[in-house]
Amino acid sequence: MTRTVYLNGDYLPEHEAKVSIFDRGFLMSDGIYEVTSVLDGKLIDFDGHAVRLQRSLDELDMAHPSSKDDLLEVHRELVRRNEITDGMIYLQITRGNPGDRDFAYPPADTPPTLVLFTQAKPGMADSPMAQTGMKVISIADQRWGRRDIKTVQLLYPSMGKMMAKAAGADDAWMVEDGHVTEGTSNNAYIVKGNTIITRHLGNEILHGITRAAVLRFAREAQMKVEERSFTIQEALEADEAFITSASTFVMPVVELDGTAIGTGTPGPVATRLREIYLEESRKAAV
Amino acid sequence: MTRTVYLNGDYLPEHEAKVSIFDRGFLMSDGIYEVTSVLDGKLIDFDGHAVRLQRSLDELDMAHPSSKDDLLEVHRELVRRNEITDGMIYLQITRGNPGDRDFAYPPADTPPTLVLFTQAKPGMADSPMAQTGMKVISIADQRWGRRDIKTVQLLYPSMGKMMAKAAGADDAWMVEDGHVTEGTSNNAYIVKGNTIITRHLGNEILHGITRAAVLRFAREAQMKVEERSFTIQEALEADEAFITSASTFVMPVVELDGTAIGTGTPGPVATRLREIYLEESRKAAV
Repeated sequence: MTRTVYLNGDYLPEHEAKVSIFDRGFLMSDGIYEVTSVLDGKLIDFDGHAVRLQRSLDELDMAHPSSKDDLLEVHRELVRRNEITDGMIYLQITRGNPGDRDFAYPPADTPPTLVLFTQAKPGMADSPMAQTGMKVISIADQRWGRRDIKTVQLLYPSMGKMMAKAAGADDAWMVEDGHVTEGTSNNAYIVKGNTIITRHLGNEILHGITRAAVLRFAREAQMKVEERSFTIQEALEADEAFITSASTFVMPVVELDGTAIGTGTPGPVATRLREIYLEESRKAAV
Repeated sequence: MTRTVYLNGDYLPEHEAKVSIFDRGFLMSDGIYEVTSVLDGKLIDFDGHAVRLQRSLDELDMAHPSSKDDLLEVHRELVRRNEITDGMIYLQITRGNPGDRDFAYPPADTPPTLVLFTQAKPGMADSPMAQTGMKVISIADQRWGRRDIKTVQLLYPSMGKMMAKAAGADDAWMVEDGHVTEGTSNNAYIVKGNTIITRHLGNEILHGITRAAVLRFAREAQMKVEERSFTIQEALEADEAFITSASTFVMPVVELDGTAIGTGTPGPVATRLREIYLEESRKAAV
């Protein structure tokens, strides 16, 4: 089946979806994105992603190309047309095509570029990795200073994934000034005793939508949460570790830089949080 | 006249030059670029740009889509077709279109995307700004850690240009750990007594092709050159300041953060270096 994608008002076969070489997303990395998961054909945390999208646009003085309701309808239409049961919907907005290249922003009335496409992931919530846990390595965090804005400047995270792959691992945790910031496309957590520790919000990390939901569920379940930075050494001495993201939900981390964390198997806190998150998210899905 | 651009082997009218929304340049900022100036219809420092292009590709494990000779021919053909006397040729290579989105690099045999286009700038070497000098402001350097690789991750430099514009200035010098790194799209210099001071090479700055040529000409003209970092305070107390880039050549800086540098007019060192650079570059142009 040829995938249908959305581009600036049109639903197109994926091979016909093209943007100008002068699009600022292509020339200047002047774009932002969101990824929303689909479970049972419904959108997970759509409101959270819509709020963060608006924040990214505001931080970069970019115009919103569409209302939240219209975006919701495009998401749903893509789910329908591509018959997505489980998977993701990717959305990207760029500052549009000014017709030439310039560092300065184009006139404010330049139409932004809006792209959405689906990625089918049947059985996504039953990932085998949730049973075995994932392996991560630590790498230096070389990204720009505003990771709280979800921009398409993903070259270094891509390089990090390749470094992890080369080391026989699944992902990389990035370290800056001696402390873990986050994973290449996820937030990072450790568990020590009854306490869940994850980095506090700031410009240094993405303000994960899944992170916010998981911390809320953790607190509701009377787990203790500390939002503060931690070191690789502290992670190595932790009882458990895990990550969260829109597409992996809660995923246990069982090895860091070749050393087992805790028992070297998915821990009870990560496992329980994954269950709660999936259960609550399915209930609230739209 | 409709501009002719080059895209993956084809010469196309500019409005027809489009890339897939799945191109890694659009989705992941996984691309690099070069800008070569044209004076009197000939290419300035083409060899230097070709060497740096290869270095960027090597640093990112990207395949070279074309031989240097073939690239030279595309540059020349674009100059001919677009009747460029003075201007720039922009070249971008991305890791191509894998047909879907993934952080991991696509298979090595995925064809890279190669785009070139021209920008006509009649009288480019006689810019009025060379007579009046430019104004810069200082801003924090928020870019990623590998500025020596000429990637399309240009969102922060774009933001910097807009900050400068908002402050009534022409550009911004970026500051990290108390020292100037470079301008948003150029290398930064100050002159104190008979000494030209510019930041040493490293991951923190772009290894400017124009920088290398200008420093060579300066040394040949018996000027003293110190390659070391300097502070904003030192710049404010300098006798002169200037920038270099492929498209501005050597351009005097006469004001920094609202304070005049030296006499507040283009200094003799910058003016002389601009003359030498333009003269020698025209001679060596291909």
